[in-house]
Amino acid sequence: MRVLGVDPGLTRCGVGVVDVAPGRKAVLVHVSVIRTPPELALEERVVRIGRGIAELLDEHRPDVVALERVFAQHNVRTVMGTAQASGVAMYMAAERGLAVALHTPSEVKAAVTGYGAADKKQVGAMVARILGLDAPPSPADAADALAIAICHAWRGPAAIATPSGGTGLTPAQRAWAEAEKGSRRR
Amino acid sequence: MRVLGVDPGLTRCGVGVVDVAPGRKAVLVHVSVIRTPPELALEERVVRIGRGIAELLDEHRPDVVALERVFAQHNVRTVMGTAQASGVAMYMAAERGLAVALHTPSEVKAAVTGYGAADKKQVGAMVARILGLDAPPSPADAADALAIAICHAWRGPAAIATPSGGTGLTPAQRAWAEAEKGSRRR
Repeated sequence: MRVLGVDPGLTRCGVGVVDVAPGRKAVLVHVSVIRTPPELALEERVVRIGRGIAELLDEHRPDVVALERVFAQHNVRTVMGTAQASGVAMYMAAERGLAVALHTPSEVKAAVTGYGAADKKQVGAMVARILGLDAPPSPADAADALAIAICHAWRGPAAIATPSGGTGLTPAQRAWAEAEKGSRRR
Repeated sequence: MRVLGVDPGLTRCGVGVVDVAPGRKAVLVHVSVIRTPPELALEERVVRIGRGIAELLDEHRPDVVALERVFAQHNVRTVMGTAQASGVAMYMAAERGLAVALHTPSEVKAAVTGYGAADKKQVGAMVARILGLDAPPSPADAADALAIAICHAWRGPAAIATPSGGTGLTPAQRAWAEAEKGSRRR
């Protein structure tokens, strides 16, 4: 399963692609940060984020796009830009017929570190360990994007929200879900 | 000048197109509300909003898209969806090379009713009067979208935020800005 994880933001939008095999082994495919300068007009920033994500989707062809769920309660100063970036990221994915999944920050931290209130340093260290990297991906937005992708692959495709309300699994995804269930039982 | 006004929202996204001549006379071209059901997956709602706006842009070919500026402080419960819808609307416009302008709710109310704290009923009544309609457009999201479009045309293209930081006016827009200035002096 190839997952594009997105840590949405206008100034720094973390994007990470990982391949996760049924044995839960995760391999880094791509990680970067799409940046737009705050002095740019808002709509131009939104377009750059959208185009950056479109390029990644077309180049790496993930099976699913996982985003951090944005809450209005957090960081009121930046939350509007975060929500606008996440809206565009969702649009780019869903417009291509890709499944989109949302995970809360604590789900992501718990999946990667085993602890829902882990700090950024712990998340970065665990992402590096999981992917066999020499050092935590930097900046934190890049590490967070990878953590979101890993979280999604490990939590399984049941977390995918689909228009029909069903699980929206392809045959390959169903096979993977079964394999995942099996590996959890062990 | 043809303006598409957008009152962004996921459940109800008001969209209104008006033509405004240099003599400030405003003519209704189109008004509707793009609706998406709350039970639909978020990314599918975002796609439907984006496609709905794309259709309007391609059918009515506005010169500019004006949106209500969203504030995180207002309506915390719905503000994330509003921001996601506005992000997609901005993307659709800017991706087509159209100018995008943002106006605050009080700017819109002041432009249309002369009073920045006007209520929805007053805004609807003035929109109907300005456009020569028999009754206020309904629902309020439709009236608000038209009010945003009228506000933008009347405030003049100086309100357009452009990537370059300049006024980003086409020759036609510059001519119109001059005409607007002249009419204000009278």
